[in-house]
Amino acid sequence: MIGIGIIGYGYWGPNLARNFADLPGARLVAIADGDPASRAAAQARHPGLRVLGDAADLVADPEVDAVAIATPTATHAVLGHAALECGKHVWVEKPMAATVADAERLVEAAARRNRVLMVDHVYVHNAAAQRIRAMIDDGALGTPYYYDSVRINLGRFQTDVSVLWDLAAHDLALVDYLFDDRAVEVSAIGTAHMRGAPENIAYVTLRYDAPLIAHIHVNWLAPVKTRRATIGGSRRMAVWNDLIPDEKLKVYESGVDVAPQPDERLQRRIGYRIGDVWSPRLDVAEPLARAARHFVDCIAHARTPVTDGQSGLRVVRLLEAAAKSMARDGRPVALLGKVSA
Amino acid sequence: MIGIGIIGYGYWGPNLARNFADLPGARLVAIADGDPASRAAAQARHPGLRVLGDAADLVADPEVDAVAIATPTATHAVLGHAALECGKHVWVEKPMAATVADAERLVEAAARRNRVLMVDHVYVHNAAAQRIRAMIDDGALGTPYYYDSVRINLGRFQTDVSVLWDLAAHDLALVDYLFDDRAVEVSAIGTAHMRGAPENIAYVTLRYDAPLIAHIHVNWLAPVKTRRATIGGSRRMAVWNDLIPDEKLKVYESGVDVAPQPDERLQRRIGYRIGDVWSPRLDVAEPLARAARHFVDCIAHARTPVTDGQSGLRVVRLLEAAAKSMARDGRPVALLGKVSA
Amino acid sequence: MIGIGIIGYGYWGPNLARNFADLPGARLVAIADGDPASRAAAQARHPGLRVLGDAADLVADPEVDAVAIATPTATHAVLGHAALECGKHVWVEKPMAATVADAERLVEAAARRNRVLMVDHVYVHNAAAQRIRAMIDDGALGTPYYYDSVRINLGRFQTDVSVLWDLAAHDLALVDYLFDDRAVEVSAIGTAHMRGAPENIAYVTLRYDAPLIAHIHVNWLAPVKTRRATIGGSRRMAVWNDLIPDEKLKVYESGVDVAPQPDERLQRRIGYRIGDVWSPRLDVAEPLARAARHFVDCIAHARTPVTDGQSGLRVVRLLEAAAKSMARDGRPVALLGKVSA
Amino acid sequence: MIGIGIIGYGYWGPNLARNFADLPGARLVAIADGDPASRAAAQARHPGLRVLGDAADLVADPEVDAVAIATPTATHAVLGHAALECGKHVWVEKPMAATVADAERLVEAAARRNRVLMVDHVYVHNAAAQRIRAMIDDGALGTPYYYDSVRINLGRFQTDVSVLWDLAAHDLALVDYLFDDRAVEVSAIGTAHMRGAPENIAYVTLRYDAPLIAHIHVNWLAPVKTRRATIGGSRRMAVWNDLIPDEKLKVYESGVDVAPQPDERLQRRIGYRIGDVWSPRLDVAEPLARAARHFVDCIAHARTPVTDGQSGLRVVRLLEAAAKSMARDGRPVALLGKVSA
Repeated sequence: MIGIGIIGYGYWGPNLARNFADLPGARLVAIADGDPASRAAAQARHPGLRVLGDAADLVADPEVDAVAIATPTATHAVLGHAALECGKHVWVEKPMAATVADAERLVEAAARRNRVLMVDHVYVHNAAAQRIRAMIDDGALGTPYYYDSVRINLGRFQTDVSVLWDLAAHDLALVDYLFDDRAVEVSAIGTAHMRGAPENIAYVTLRYDAPLIAHIHVNWLAPVKTRRATIGGSRRMAVWNDLIPDEKLKVYESGVDVAPQPDERLQRRIGYRIGDVWSPRLDVAEPLARAARHFVDCIAHARTPVTDGQSGLRVVRLLEAAAKSMARDGRPVALLGKVSA
Repeated sequence: MIGIGIIGYGYWGPNLARNFADLPGARLVAIADGDPASRAAAQARHPGLRVLGDAADLVADPEVDAVAIATPTATHAVLGHAALECGKHVWVEKPMAATVADAERLVEAAARRNRVLMVDHVYVHNAAAQRIRAMIDDGALGTPYYYDSVRINLGRFQTDVSVLWDLAAHDLALVDYLFDDRAVEVSAIGTAHMRGAPENIAYVTLRYDAPLIAHIHVNWLAPVKTRRATIGGSRRMAVWNDLIPDEKLKVYESGVDVAPQPDERLQRRIGYRIGDVWSPRLDVAEPLARAARHFVDCIAHARTPVTDGQSGLRVVRLLEAAAKSMARDGRPVALLGKVSA
Repeated sequence: MIGIGIIGYGYWGPNLARNFADLPGARLVAIADGDPASRAAAQARHPGLRVLGDAADLVADPEVDAVAIATPTATHAVLGHAALECGKHVWVEKPMAATVADAERLVEAAARRNRVLMVDHVYVHNAAAQRIRAMIDDGALGTPYYYDSVRINLGRFQTDVSVLWDLAAHDLALVDYLFDDRAVEVSAIGTAHMRGAPENIAYVTLRYDAPLIAHIHVNWLAPVKTRRATIGGSRRMAVWNDLIPDEKLKVYESGVDVAPQPDERLQRRIGYRIGDVWSPRLDVAEPLARAARHFVDCIAHARTPVTDGQSGLRVVRLLEAAAKSMARDGRPVALLGKVSA
Repeated sequence: MIGIGIIGYGYWGPNLARNFADLPGARLVAIADGDPASRAAAQARHPGLRVLGDAADLVADPEVDAVAIATPTATHAVLGHAALECGKHVWVEKPMAATVADAERLVEAAARRNRVLMVDHVYVHNAAAQRIRAMIDDGALGTPYYYDSVRINLGRFQTDVSVLWDLAAHDLALVDYLFDDRAVEVSAIGTAHMRGAPENIAYVTLRYDAPLIAHIHVNWLAPVKTRRATIGGSRRMAVWNDLIPDEKLKVYESGVDVAPQPDERLQRRIGYRIGDVWSPRLDVAEPLARAARHFVDCIAHARTPVTDGQSGLRVVRLLEAAAKSMARDGRPVALLGKVSA
């Protein structure tokens, strides 16, 4: 039985509390939040639970085996580090940290203390994502051609971070998970429509030393909430619409082929395949419940999470580079040491 | 009665022939095409019509008052110039020309001969576009914040021009029509997935000296055909989905406001408005029929078309700049003389 | 503060417990269920709450002001009667009772003891239903022409009652609420596809001494879950799709008019109006929360609920008549004393 | 080369003319219509074609091998009979005739003269219908459980026939085609909302000596045009939505099974299967073109059409019985000699 302590009971913390409370193999031990109203809410929902005002008390609690951190991004590094130093396993909300340097410190501490460090890139734990990854692994999609995501809605405007760090973080974690290739260059263009607030709309493009291209559209000022990713491959294409109750994932037996007839004009060699559409049945469990189970399993069996600190760090590197490009009106920023002319 | 001659009876020419044949005030006089099979098709559909093998004969035909050019883009300038020099009015398919220089020559010739020159930016003649423009004019949308378009489908791969010149041309004409502001910088990133073929996927962003940002996603390798533009304003937002039979245009009484309380934290001053959704009844006439009628009206009453040569030229300028940015991996290209650092 | 006791913690009881626990003005006092597993579940979700094995103890509890009954339909009458006789207010799940005689006994007991008796016809408390009722009241829909409902899904097959008593009960309550006219005749045709089980598909039609007709399609063996009602009126028409997150209610400015020119052929006098579509913003609160608040308000202010015992009784009368028609292969059954030839 | 003559160039005739004109193996020879405006329209669309005012001239034309009749239903019998007596093959629009007696006379005449008689039940020639039939034939759907159709729209109100004869005719032809079982009883309830006009909304139910039930909802006064049929089987279920451009047919690997454990309670033996959804690629040719080709093939190879006179007659029998039930407020009417109690 893994004892879980949660730091932060604001927007997302209640979801963590509910899921860890219901998870076999875990026991919700304590919640800490500096805000009295949040503590009162936590106590009302979880009568009898230890509800604390100081995160340090939670981190020091011997019944707490693992700490889940659901506080503002800027505080992740300090809290996570403290928990790791106390020998706790750590679950941290996305993005893992506000800077690459902070993210690296967390990774280093987890390695040194040999603790599980998992970032809650919850979309990676969605059954649809795992099915797409399987279709890439077994060749069903063919060579990956593009990842195109639209992740837009009205609100929740944040004033400390831009829409990049809020919404694009999900997609950067997904491309990190889905593809073996790593981006070599990132461009981002965004705009802030509210005076004094960070960018609320952004377009991010990742380029690869491969046929792959990834593009992410994030927006806090969109009239229709959308969570849709299209993954195009040389053999098949997949569309994942996470907001519909059924048929979230559709696979299209469609594509374009070029016949290898060197003497013929290219226009005549291009052929279209339009075939069946297929929507596989997916596990309907809440993705956060799947993520929580994965975390507890990794602790119990000393495994590395799919969304471990290294992947969280790679996402923060992409975010930092994208923010840099956005500040430079979209000029590409090189990754992985590749020089951008 | 305006006599119409059509040059080019391939993919789009038959649509022009059908619409001009049915248009009151116009008379379809002749069709020219160099390909015998196309001529046979034209003759079968239009028994009794003059069907010619040489465009020069059509341009010289005294019964032809106006020439509609539906040939490959690279030939528009020569054919259009010849027609204008013969004193004909000219309708030219989009994009107007393959280069800015060619487009400028057409504009100059039309001005010199005082003829109507209209580019078939057919989406501008769509009732939805005109309704959106009206909502911008009368303030219903408020300050324009963004134009976001997804214009994707499977095929028709072209081997002479990239997806930019094929599909993005529609959106560049729309932003030219909808907004008074002119873009100051364009970025474009694209990829070619078929060996030897031009880019089949591209992302174009336009930046303005205004809160406005425009983004265009075009793709010839997408599993689900999509024609959807979202126009966000400070007061309302509109979504135009051109592929559904009803409710193509939806207006959302939604948005974000920032209360002007200087002492309060920004996060607390941000408020969301979520209101009714409204779908105005639109003229259901085929947009191409509306465009054809507009062309004939402009000739009859010596008016300047909404999509005149100047607007066609501005679109070609944007296309040329976007192609240049795409060739430079997305580095922004300045427009209007603005220096890009 | 109204003390609430809940009898039955199976499928629906947990929803009642959650909503009454969160409701200002109410206090969840006790839950009773004969099944040890259900009691354990109730205790786990509501630590510290009184969880009882015998409903009689709950009914006798002086801290319980109102009893909510979420047990199988056949038990509603006995439990409700006992609660009313103890002076408790009663909330009873739909359908109110298994027979008209039982329903009448409950109505009589509530009247005699002067207690609030409310049936949980939860769709009536949906903001969309109340908006439609308002559009009928203020004439926006014009004369009601038809109510057409599709309420289908896969499962939950029940073996004690047919799909009529399970799903059609919702629609019968809605037509009772929406329209002032009362049906004079009901027909129902259904089929049982599983050996030994009751009818899993049924079509119910209500006829009126008015232009109105109501039709209800219920099905436990449908591939796509659907909750859609269309209400046609002489001036406007409304479609309520309860399963989509936004724009659940759409109002169509469409219809047919017959011009009053007695000498003209009817075919030429018929004209179609096709106008705007409008989706009003609705309260997004959970309908069950709205219903619970209404119950507590009625108790606090001695008001009669919208879905009171009389309306619940009328629904049971319709169900009984529909079941009778279904047993007779669809022969119409008269209501309200009207003789069916 | 089969010579085709068309009688009636009103609403549907132009579609026949266009399809037979484009059909390899057929030649459009003549069109007859009593109305000068219709003749002018026919001549404008088909310059050079013989356009006649008297159907008798067309029927007598020796170049006409087959006559297609697209006139009001009441005239089908006389015109069809005349054409058959002249030795012509006959294509007749649905419904085949206004009465069973008329339909029988046509069938008899075609048999006597050994001519092809085909009814244009165009939905039967839709690729989706043929795919569903194939899934019934090969057992993929299992035992047919139900056919449920919604065929509604705004207009075209007709004043000579009710919505039954106009819209329900399509579904009655489909059930006749899809299922080997024949209905034993039909019920129909309808209402006329426009004074002096026939019923504009109707609900038709067919009962069988089989688990099958069929239900048809037709309506001329509906805000959203719908053409959707669901076919439930014991193994799979199919939904055919004819108004969407792609994925018109979806097959659901879902259903309910009852385990054969006689000692266990039924409720525990019921299990749900929810599996993949699959949308097969269908022929995208226009169904009317497919039907026209089938007619010409049947003439050329002396075959019996899928929608031959016998099937057309069965549909008229169902329509007549449904109309009788509707006139009796829904009392069931027996078919096939079965006595309705």
